[in-house]
Amino acid sequence: MKLTLGEIARKLNLELRGDPSIVISGLAGLTDAGPGQLSFLFSSRYKQHLSDTDATAIVLREDDIGACELPVLISEYPRLTWAQVATFFDPKPLPNLKIHESVQVSLTASYGSELTIGANVVIENGARLDHGVVIGAGCFIGENVEIGEGSVLAANVSVYHNVKIGKNAIVHSGAVIGADGFGFEFDRATASLVKIPQIYGVEIGDNVEIGAGTTIDRGALKNTVISNGVKLDNQVQIGHGVSIGSHTAISGCSAVGGSTVLGAYCLIGGGVGIIDNIEICDQVEITALSLVSHSIKQKGRYSSGTGLLSGNIWKRSVVGFAKLNDILKRIRKIESRMKKE
Amino acid sequence: MKLTLGEIARKLNLELRGDPSIVISGLAGLTDAGPGQLSFLFSSRYKQHLSDTDATAIVLREDDIGACELPVLISEYPRLTWAQVATFFDPKPLPNLKIHESVQVSLTASYGSELTIGANVVIENGARLDHGVVIGAGCFIGENVEIGEGSVLAANVSVYHNVKIGKNAIVHSGAVIGADGFGFEFDRATASLVKIPQIYGVEIGDNVEIGAGTTIDRGALKNTVISNGVKLDNQVQIGHGVSIGSHTAISGCSAVGGSTVLGAYCLIGGGVGIIDNIEICDQVEITALSLVSHSIKQKGRYSSGTGLLSGNIWKRSVVGFAKLNDILKRIRKIESRMKKE
Amino acid sequence: MKLTLGEIARKLNLELRGDPSIVISGLAGLTDAGPGQLSFLFSSRYKQHLSDTDATAIVLREDDIGACELPVLISEYPRLTWAQVATFFDPKPLPNLKIHESVQVSLTASYGSELTIGANVVIENGARLDHGVVIGAGCFIGENVEIGEGSVLAANVSVYHNVKIGKNAIVHSGAVIGADGFGFEFDRATASLVKIPQIYGVEIGDNVEIGAGTTIDRGALKNTVISNGVKLDNQVQIGHGVSIGSHTAISGCSAVGGSTVLGAYCLIGGGVGIIDNIEICDQVEITALSLVSHSIKQKGRYSSGTGLLSGNIWKRSVVGFAKLNDILKRIRKIESRMKKE
Repeated sequence: MKLTLGEIARKLNLELRGDPSIVISGLAGLTDAGPGQLSFLFSSRYKQHLSDTDATAIVLREDDIGACELPVLISEYPRLTWAQVATFFDPKPLPNLKIHESVQVSLTASYGSELTIGANVVIENGARLDHGVVIGAGCFIGENVEIGEGSVLAANVSVYHNVKIGKNAIVHSGAVIGADGFGFEFDRATASLVKIPQIYGVEIGDNVEIGAGTTIDRGALKNTVISNGVKLDNQVQIGHGVSIGSHTAISGCSAVGGSTVLGAYCLIGGGVGIIDNIEICDQVEITALSLVSHSIKQKGRYSSGTGLLSGNIWKRSVVGFAKLNDILKRIRKIESRMKKE
Repeated sequence: MKLTLGEIARKLNLELRGDPSIVISGLAGLTDAGPGQLSFLFSSRYKQHLSDTDATAIVLREDDIGACELPVLISEYPRLTWAQVATFFDPKPLPNLKIHESVQVSLTASYGSELTIGANVVIENGARLDHGVVIGAGCFIGENVEIGEGSVLAANVSVYHNVKIGKNAIVHSGAVIGADGFGFEFDRATASLVKIPQIYGVEIGDNVEIGAGTTIDRGALKNTVISNGVKLDNQVQIGHGVSIGSHTAISGCSAVGGSTVLGAYCLIGGGVGIIDNIEICDQVEITALSLVSHSIKQKGRYSSGTGLLSGNIWKRSVVGFAKLNDILKRIRKIESRMKKE
Repeated sequence: MKLTLGEIARKLNLELRGDPSIVISGLAGLTDAGPGQLSFLFSSRYKQHLSDTDATAIVLREDDIGACELPVLISEYPRLTWAQVATFFDPKPLPNLKIHESVQVSLTASYGSELTIGANVVIENGARLDHGVVIGAGCFIGENVEIGEGSVLAANVSVYHNVKIGKNAIVHSGAVIGADGFGFEFDRATASLVKIPQIYGVEIGDNVEIGAGTTIDRGALKNTVISNGVKLDNQVQIGHGVSIGSHTAISGCSAVGGSTVLGAYCLIGGGVGIIDNIEICDQVEITALSLVSHSIKQKGRYSSGTGLLSGNIWKRSVVGFAKLNDILKRIRKIESRMKKE
């Protein structure tokens, strides 16, 4: 994993100002980078770090070049360049294109070519794995699951029956796709909760990434749908029958309640709760730890919660919060008295 | 999976108004249903969809029948009927009643009849699996674990030693039962946290469902107890020594702190946090993302948090929240001045 | 697992007041303990339970001895004594010091002595397991992973490539270490999110405990760092490039956003969200379900959120919260009018 600046410039079609023979052996942030590493100026705000970085070369916008005495690669979008150049320095093991001898595979499963299937994987009846699919060790692939070309499942992923995953998906360890949605009906006769069988499946589009420990439930009355380009961080929970529009990104530990429809190009922060049976339009941003308790029909940024306060101030504000209705009444009373005067 | 309306009516003992020979091949919601599908009118509020649904027949209450020109099955509780009829159309694979040859099983484990044990399952010393138990591929069943009649573990479930699971439990993939509770004591001598061994186990009653990725810790000074009929959604966390009363349902991503006692027939929303060492009585409902920071002695509905607001309004309210104590003081001052006048 | 009081006193170097031949067969809390069990008075507040406990003997502080007629072990720190004595009564199975024949191990992996490796474990190229390491059934150990002396992984843990774990770590089932951080850049040309490869790894210090289902992401521009003595409860999420200072404890279901630096000796409650790219100094305490939305430079206790309220009061307070800016304006108006008068 060594490349010259000249090679990097050529591969990414970037202008290089500096010696093309300089060898780059890795990437790091401006303040962490050492000799041999390429770094990035993502924003002019961090310009002051250019003078004291130990990086060997910098990717930056043409506008920022004045501040830099190091060799530079000029990019209109340094973060996109980062995404591209990082692929050259990624130590991630390549698929070995082998089906491990310990794999337990049903005779009725069907396979594309150039598969990589790790040890102790179990593949049930009727499953279909397309060309180039990679299944990590210990994964369970249920009946009639379909996994599209180039998709990669890390170790220990569980996929229940009748789940479809599109092309070029990445699914991280511990993810569970297609477990039963949480559906029960209270039966007065027995004073207990009766399970509603979750008979539909999950449809996942192309270029979707699903984080470690994330769970996507199967549907009860329709499929759960994750559209193309959706990115789900770790430990996200998607309820039954949810539909998520394309290119929406949901950060870690957020949850979407059953049958909710989430638009395209939304950005959902971490720890967000979105209740069931609502609709959220495209391009909605929700900040971390907010509760979305009603439908949203207008794009924009939404939040709930209070700011972080130090202990004593917070306690007093909590007391005040409980009295807010009383506060409003008292102000109204004062105002009406003043009017009379 | 095809049944006539007449067969469904007979099996569920429902009155049919329509041609009993009509074939039903699936279920769907009113607005999604197509030809051959049975649908449901769960509430009179959705009556308007009856006129334009493509469903072939409808389950509804007698009171709602006037609005419907399609064949109908009359049910006092359409949602309960849904739960029942969905079992006929569930494509979930049936247990194959085989013990896979790759299963690693201790000689001292004991077995009921008609077990289904998937590939690569590990069963440790002294474990006991009763009649009809199903263990999915890749599960780990620790020492002295007991699993009651008819219980089903999906793939990749981990059960630590000395956990008892009752009858007819359903445990979804990625669930972890019996990991150590989070117990440490700060030791001044070494300025570090000393682990408190979690020497008790977990007792789970009958008819309990445990969602994907849900974790239930073992106890330190007593068993963690999950009573009959409790339903835990995905990614729920139950701390050590917690006791949950029967038929309580907890939605996804909620957490219950150690030693807390939760009553029966409670409904806990998603993302709720319940602190440790408190008691919550029966029939308490907690709305999503609330923090329960003290015991609750009266049944009813409880909430915390602010409503969802759009960005700018929210920021100003957050400023106001921090000043609530000040607001109260200023109102009191105004009021006392007015009295003097 | 039976010890006499005399043996316990000798092993822990505690003063015993009572018959040293009394046999102890277990531990329990004061109100749960039965004959043969040792219990603990953790705080003088619970003294009243000493008169009606069925425990056979009590660990307590010298100051509390007056209230107790049972045999006692005197300890300055009863909770530390609990941590020590519980190790004698822990039924946790001991490692069997065997490498199971089903283990799939790369030829280039290297091993210390006295390893225990469970069934169906997969160990990839270049991995290194030091003396006494225990790997539970079904674990995946990626390329070049290093695991230090005495560390224990429970069943079904997934460790991606280039992760280093120190000595005496405990990692619970379902944990995922080294999955990709959540890093994407929006590409206007394709109107989609481009993945930023996460090319760095994870470094975990000594004596770290990692809970069930907890996920620790690998870094994008630097390693994710978990320092010595850190304790992470279940279902915690640690973002890419995060650094956590030594002996910090994080309770269940909390999440730390990417590149955030968390100090030493912090106590983070359950369900807390800490946003990305901030710094939190040493000895900060955050209460449950708080959102930490900015850096913290002063040690102390911090909170966000409202108190728990019953449904109707809460609804009115939520209305008031949305009007807080308006409330402030109205009060200012009233005050300025009063001044004029």
